[in-house]
Amino acid sequence: MEILNDEYYMRLALNLADGASGQTGVNPVVGCVVVKEGRIVGLGAHLKRGEGHAEVHALNMAGEQASGATAYVTLEPCSHYGQTPPCCERLIKEGVSRVVVAAVDPNPLVAGQGLARLREAGIEVLAGVLEAEAAVQNEAFNKFIRTGLPFVTLKTAMSLDGRIATRTGHSRWITGAAAREAVHTLRHRHSGIMVGVQTVLADDPELTTRLSVPALHPARIIVDSKLNTPITARVLNEAAPTIVLTTLRADESRAERLRQLGAEVLRCGDGERVDLVAAMRELGTRGISSVLLEGGGVLNGAMLEAGLVDKVNLFYAPIIVGGEGAPSAFSYVGPNEMSAALRLSGVSMQSYGDDWCVTGYPSNRLDRPENEAGSQERAGKEDVQDVYGTY
Amino acid sequence: MEILNDEYYMRLALNLADGASGQTGVNPVVGCVVVKEGRIVGLGAHLKRGEGHAEVHALNMAGEQASGATAYVTLEPCSHYGQTPPCCERLIKEGVSRVVVAAVDPNPLVAGQGLARLREAGIEVLAGVLEAEAAVQNEAFNKFIRTGLPFVTLKTAMSLDGRIATRTGHSRWITGAAAREAVHTLRHRHSGIMVGVQTVLADDPELTTRLSVPALHPARIIVDSKLNTPITARVLNEAAPTIVLTTLRADESRAERLRQLGAEVLRCGDGERVDLVAAMRELGTRGISSVLLEGGGVLNGAMLEAGLVDKVNLFYAPIIVGGEGAPSAFSYVGPNEMSAALRLSGVSMQSYGDDWCVTGYPSNRLDRPENEAGSQERAGKEDVQDVYGTY
Repeated sequence: MEILNDEYYMRLALNLADGASGQTGVNPVVGCVVVKEGRIVGLGAHLKRGEGHAEVHALNMAGEQASGATAYVTLEPCSHYGQTPPCCERLIKEGVSRVVVAAVDPNPLVAGQGLARLREAGIEVLAGVLEAEAAVQNEAFNKFIRTGLPFVTLKTAMSLDGRIATRTGHSRWITGAAAREAVHTLRHRHSGIMVGVQTVLADDPELTTRLSVPALHPARIIVDSKLNTPITARVLNEAAPTIVLTTLRADESRAERLRQLGAEVLRCGDGERVDLVAAMRELGTRGISSVLLEGGGVLNGAMLEAGLVDKVNLFYAPIIVGGEGAPSAFSYVGPNEMSAALRLSGVSMQSYGDDWCVTGYPSNRLDRPENEAGSQERAGKEDVQDVYGTY
Repeated sequence: MEILNDEYYMRLALNLADGASGQTGVNPVVGCVVVKEGRIVGLGAHLKRGEGHAEVHALNMAGEQASGATAYVTLEPCSHYGQTPPCCERLIKEGVSRVVVAAVDPNPLVAGQGLARLREAGIEVLAGVLEAEAAVQNEAFNKFIRTGLPFVTLKTAMSLDGRIATRTGHSRWITGAAAREAVHTLRHRHSGIMVGVQTVLADDPELTTRLSVPALHPARIIVDSKLNTPITARVLNEAAPTIVLTTLRADESRAERLRQLGAEVLRCGDGERVDLVAAMRELGTRGISSVLLEGGGVLNGAMLEAGLVDKVNLFYAPIIVGGEGAPSAFSYVGPNEMSAALRLSGVSMQSYGDDWCVTGYPSNRLDRPENEAGSQERAGKEDVQDVYGTY
């Protein structure tokens, strides 16, 4: 049963913000609820970059009733002139008497300044209500604003024994319709979707968002060291922007052909393979603040080893594939000792039809076995080469 | 919130029965609650084969109050003279006026006779209350009484990507203390625990039940085609009976040496490997009605392929091992098409500390790839040989 208190209204504000997830670009999602004398008088959410903030929408709805009201805001109101005037001044001007905030601004340069400005104007301020929920809601924004790197969510669909295909490579379908709809919703909520060229060659996916309602298409990002993406690939169609990540070594005429089809070609590093850290930095400068990684085992493993995966969504179908040699969701040179395995924290589970999704956050960096004691005898160089295919 | 009705008392009776799981041998677990004028006047459970049935214990507790009372029994009261007099006659003699039953006797030869006898004596009878729960509770007994074969529960502990060890074979520990205690509780509740000789050679386990309270040790069953179990193996100690499953081809002097150490040697089939179907039949005749299979990937795979696994308990630690070549929990020749994978039904999840257990029931038979269309080209004979090690 629900209890009417600050959390009650903040939860509603968080729900408003959550609804706009995926449509605010590099901006955070923010919700606002204005309450006066026991009634909600204004509701708002930030819906699009460059347009009104959550507080503005909610105060517009409240009109004159904002005077003496309490405003619940999921993120500290801004105090600086950006693309829109500062929300603090608007709250003060409307005569709001109390402001309840979930999270302070994660940008270390401005954190707390909004709260200080409100207090200075005589407004009662309470911060930290449902702060943890608010932090999860903007986890991508929070990483991006601090580091300039996109928040990467690794998504994979596999059998209970960790296989993403049978030993013959057959993979359609592992999970059911409900799980696939959840994945397409994840696409809607990310600004980029990333696969390796092997996936393009094997499945020729379009990598768009297909749901029962219209949805947003993230930018399509192909990791393709040798520029082997065929010019006929569906991922090059006009449904969404396409970025091809490659290296300085890749053939320029191939790059030019892809550009002519509308793709952007980014050269990241001069090695054999794409420098994934450099690639993430490049994507960040292009406003890709969140990436849904739908790689095969090799790309997944490389991203994990590079420490670039912030979150995992592992969808399991209630099946066992067995099959020696059937592709695994994570093909990398694993650790020698079980204690060195990648450990997830904050694990939760949710069901989708007959399938389940395990969500968690990698909580330790993967050490390459070379760094483990006594690994020289056990891990030959050949293994390392074998595991890394081309992507 | 609970509601006082027939289910309320039956649930208590099921709980009483559940507590005795593992200590009734080849007998079912049964609970009984006797209720008179709004009060519980008797409680009972069948605790040990050859001793009193649940109804007898509960009626003894109720004494004269049984007259005119309602008896809730999780399993149809017996009407035949076995090791104890029939419970139906006792219920009639005590003057019980109403009997509520969860499940009818699963033995097709006697099903319904108890209920008929009670009705004949003028007692009001209601059957089928919480029948599904009662069926799960005695799922092992229900299979055993119908087929003579033990109910096999496959238990494994693995990473989220299906690995039971790192690529160097390191496996301690995958799951945490709470999951390991759950596994030892499973041992307490089974009459046999089965591993392959490779596990004996690699880990030298004792295969006993170790918990914070005294517990029962199931019979230890080693699948060992070539009788490679070392005479120094801890599994041969006196903590519990040991059964070694082998073939007619195995060396008799090795068998004799194991017998001298107290083990029973059962020769099942004259092939290269133990005939697992024959082995299960042999175990059944020795009163092993339930087997906890704690095999490695090869034995797990062979038992699944033979259609001998009734249930799986898959414990997952929140870790990703990666590691090409790291041993998988299910090493068998998997299907070519995803739709031919082994599918679980009745899936549920439970958390144990940071770990999770997925429980389910294999709902289709595994076809060997040879039976699938077009598999001849893809599945070479060599694969098949490789996958089957010795067990």
